[in-house]
Amino acid sequence: MQIKIGLVSISDRASSGIYEDKGIPALEAWLGGALASKWSSVSRLIPDEQALIEKTLIELVDMEVCSLVLTTGGTGPAPRDVTPEATIAVSDRVLDGFGEQMRAISLKYVPTAILSRQVGVIRKNALILNLPGQPKAIKETLDGIFAAVPYCIDLIGGPYIETNPDVINAFRPKK
Amino acid sequence: MQIKIGLVSISDRASSGIYEDKGIPALEAWLGGALASKWSSVSRLIPDEQALIEKTLIELVDMEVCSLVLTTGGTGPAPRDVTPEATIAVSDRVLDGFGEQMRAISLKYVPTAILSRQVGVIRKNALILNLPGQPKAIKETLDGIFAAVPYCIDLIGGPYIETNPDVINAFRPKK
Amino acid sequence: MQIKIGLVSISDRASSGIYEDKGIPALEAWLGGALASKWSSVSRLIPDEQALIEKTLIELVDMEVCSLVLTTGGTGPAPRDVTPEATIAVSDRVLDGFGEQMRAISLKYVPTAILSRQVGVIRKNALILNLPGQPKAIKETLDGIFAAVPYCIDLIGGPYIETNPDVINAFRPKK
Repeated sequence: MQIKIGLVSISDRASSGIYEDKGIPALEAWLGGALASKWSSVSRLIPDEQALIEKTLIELVDMEVCSLVLTTGGTGPAPRDVTPEATIAVSDRVLDGFGEQMRAISLKYVPTAILSRQVGVIRKNALILNLPGQPKAIKETLDGIFAAVPYCIDLIGGPYIETNPDVINAFRPKK
Repeated sequence: MQIKIGLVSISDRASSGIYEDKGIPALEAWLGGALASKWSSVSRLIPDEQALIEKTLIELVDMEVCSLVLTTGGTGPAPRDVTPEATIAVSDRVLDGFGEQMRAISLKYVPTAILSRQVGVIRKNALILNLPGQPKAIKETLDGIFAAVPYCIDLIGGPYIETNPDVINAFRPKK
Repeated sequence: MQIKIGLVSISDRASSGIYEDKGIPALEAWLGGALASKWSSVSRLIPDEQALIEKTLIELVDMEVCSLVLTTGGTGPAPRDVTPEATIAVSDRVLDGFGEQMRAISLKYVPTAILSRQVGVIRKNALILNLPGQPKAIKETLDGIFAAVPYCIDLIGGPYIETNPDVINAFRPKK
């Protein structure tokens, strides 16, 4: 079973070329170091438009058959930040623990982590996680939560993902 | 006022006899050590069927007049895990602090605690709590949250519950 | 741009004169010490009636043009506690991080903090926060979360709020 990961950078300015996107490279770099299994990725760079974010997430899960989709950007309280709304709209289930724990991790670094509305959800056989926008915060968050991701993907019927234990110790309970 | 506690073990395999249920004995053992007040219990062992879980919770609260209902099992991300959906469906109010704190407690032991969707809710004069499936995790969770349970039951019009202070120091604010 | 803060004390007993309201004085005292910018307040003392709480919050945001509204009281599990329901009903967005973090702060002091249903929400250009009822808990909570409040208000189009750094270090990320 192939491991395909969707990477979605959501930013009005990066998608219009005002500045260079740093989200997708940060996601790819982190996954490159952490995953021991063979994997491929599909990337999208899109503006903060809820309908387009929803369409993109649906395509990545339903057509591209990604088992994991990581978004970056658009989770704050500003009016243009609509990534969580789009993610929840396409979800079958919300896993509240991801939002809680991602905020708890970022709160060790900045008090404004409390303002993030990032969520983790399941759509069909895929896990979708909203990550922060900054490369440093992306790494901190993935370092803190990814140990639970492979087992989650096992449980929802996705491929078996192995990690490099020097980066991430994927946890699976003994039967 | 009688103290009646509903215990619901939710598991396809245990309810069909494929293995022995360990959830209800673990709940009974913990309560036996922690409660100083006289109490009785009503137990149910049922499969992971949302409609049946809802019906069982409604019966325990509305007909059996339980003031506290503890469920075990069915809170993960797998498709057959529907305990939280059923619990929320029969609730008058969700107390988000229980879900947050139960995950925070389990996260000290296993990183996959983040995947649990367990909730605490109020239905009428009863508190319903979703606990983990494993006896060890049941004990860890109850040790960590039960200090707040008697006061919660006071506030929603239930009986006055006393605990054994060597196990649990039930907290009630001074008036 | 003027800084106007709504203060709402929600209590059947204080609003009917059975005891003296201590919520609004506690909020004013804390803000008086923490804010370096010039600010004014509008106060309301009302009973635990959901429709009236909603009407009051709407007036403070839409007519009085408050950028921040702090409520005190009515967030517990008792049937008359309806502040969170009213706050969510008038919100455009819920910021889950506030509820989580306010409970985490109070949990350092009392195990029953888990029972609080307090939320932080955005309505138009205003942030509305549900605080505990007790003056001591109001101070503990504001001490713990306020560093993130000025930046939140920046992001939703409100006035620039400066704090006294010996009380609160308002955090704003570097551009």
